[in-house]
Amino acid sequence: MPVPCNDWIKLNVGGRLFTTTRSTLTKYPYSMLGRMFDDTRWASAIDQDGSYLIDHDPNQFDAILNYLRYGG
Amino acid sequence: MPVPCNDWIKLNVGGRLFTTTRSTLTKYPYSMLGRMFDDTRWASAIDQDGSYLIDHDPNQFDAILNYLRYGG
Amino acid sequence: MPVPCNDWIKLNVGGRLFTTTRSTLTKYPYSMLGRMFDDTRWASAIDQDGSYLIDHDPNQFDAILNYLRYGG
Amino acid sequence: MPVPCNDWIKLNVGGRLFTTTRSTLTKYPYSMLGRMFDDTRWASAIDQDGSYLIDHDPNQFDAILNYLRYGG
Amino acid sequence: MPVPCNDWIKLNVGGRLFTTTRSTLTKYPYSMLGRMFDDTRWASAIDQDGSYLIDHDPNQFDAILNYLRYGG
Repeated sequence: MPVPCNDWIKLNVGGRLFTTTRSTLTKYPYSMLGRMFDDTRWASAIDQDGSYLIDHDPNQFDAILNYLRYGG
Repeated sequence: MPVPCNDWIKLNVGGRLFTTTRSTLTKYPYSMLGRMFDDTRWASAIDQDGSYLIDHDPNQFDAILNYLRYGG
Repeated sequence: MPVPCNDWIKLNVGGRLFTTTRSTLTKYPYSMLGRMFDDTRWASAIDQDGSYLIDHDPNQFDAILNYLRYGG
Repeated sequence: MPVPCNDWIKLNVGGRLFTTTRSTLTKYPYSMLGRMFDDTRWASAIDQDGSYLIDHDPNQFDAILNYLRYGG
Repeated sequence: MPVPCNDWIKLNVGGRLFTTTRSTLTKYPYSMLGRMFDDTRWASAIDQDGSYLIDHDPNQFDAILNYLRYGG
C-alpha cells in the first residue's frame, strides 16, 4: 500500500473525483486507460487542481477502476 | 479522449457538479442543451468557479448526460 | 433556462448543497419556502459562502425541490 | 425555521459533513449528543473549518439526526 | 467520544474522504490498517490537505471502517 508519492493520480470523471495510482490505471498497458497514463503520453486535459479530466459516467468508471484494482 | 482544454465545461445542476465536453452537450444541436452551449449564445448564469448554473434535478441530468455520451 | 444572475439561490440543507432559483422556491407564495424566499423577508441564517441554512433532511428536501420544479 | 446564527452547528461525521442546529442536537438533554452539545461542555475535537469531529458511520448518524428532527 | 485532537486521521480512499481516529484504525494491531497507522510507520503517501492516500474501493472501505467501529 505505501506507494511512491508521484505515482498517485487524481481523476475528474464527469464531475466526480477519483484517486488512484498509475500502476492501477496501467495494469493493462494496451487498454485505453493504460495508454492514457503511460509515461510517454501526457496529452489529456488537466483541471486547475491537477485532476485528469475524463468525460465518462462516474458510476461506470467506478466499476472499471475496481475491476483494475481487484479483478482480472 | 484527449480533448482541447477549452472544450471542457463545468455545470452546477441543482447543486451537484458535472464535468463534460462541449461536444457531448451539443451532440443534438437543436436540443435545449445543444442551443445553450452553442458558441453563439452565452446568456446563461455562471457560478463564481465558472460552472454553468442549471436549475434541474441532478439525477435526471445524470441520465440525460449519459444518454448524450453513450446513447443515440 | 437563462435566468437573471441574482435570482440564483444556494441552500445548505442539513449539510448538502442545493442550487436553485428564487422563482422555483417561491412557486407557492404561501408555502413555508415561498415565504422564506420572498423579497420582503431576509431573516434566515446564511453560511459563510452565502448559502441559506435549513435544518432539514436533504433527501426529503430533494423531493420537495423537484416537486416545485416539475410537479404541481 | 429562522434560527439565531450562533445556534448552527457543523459536524464532520466519519468524513461526511452535516449542518444542523444546537436545539436539534440537544432535543434529548441526557442523550450522548445532548450532553456533547450542551453549553457547559466543549471538550470535543474541532476540524480546521469549525466542524465537530465524530467518529461514527455517517449513514447511521443521518438516521439519528432525522429522528431528532422529526421523530419522537 | 471526546478524543485527543492529534488522534484524528483523514483518509482519501479512492477519492472519497473519511475521518476517523487512530484508535479505530489500529483496533487490530496486526491487520494491514493496524500496521499502517501504528506510530512506528509513516511511509504512506499523504495528500496536500493531510489525508492519507489509499487506493481502494471507498464502498468496501466504508464497510471495513464500520466493522472496526462497531463490529468484532
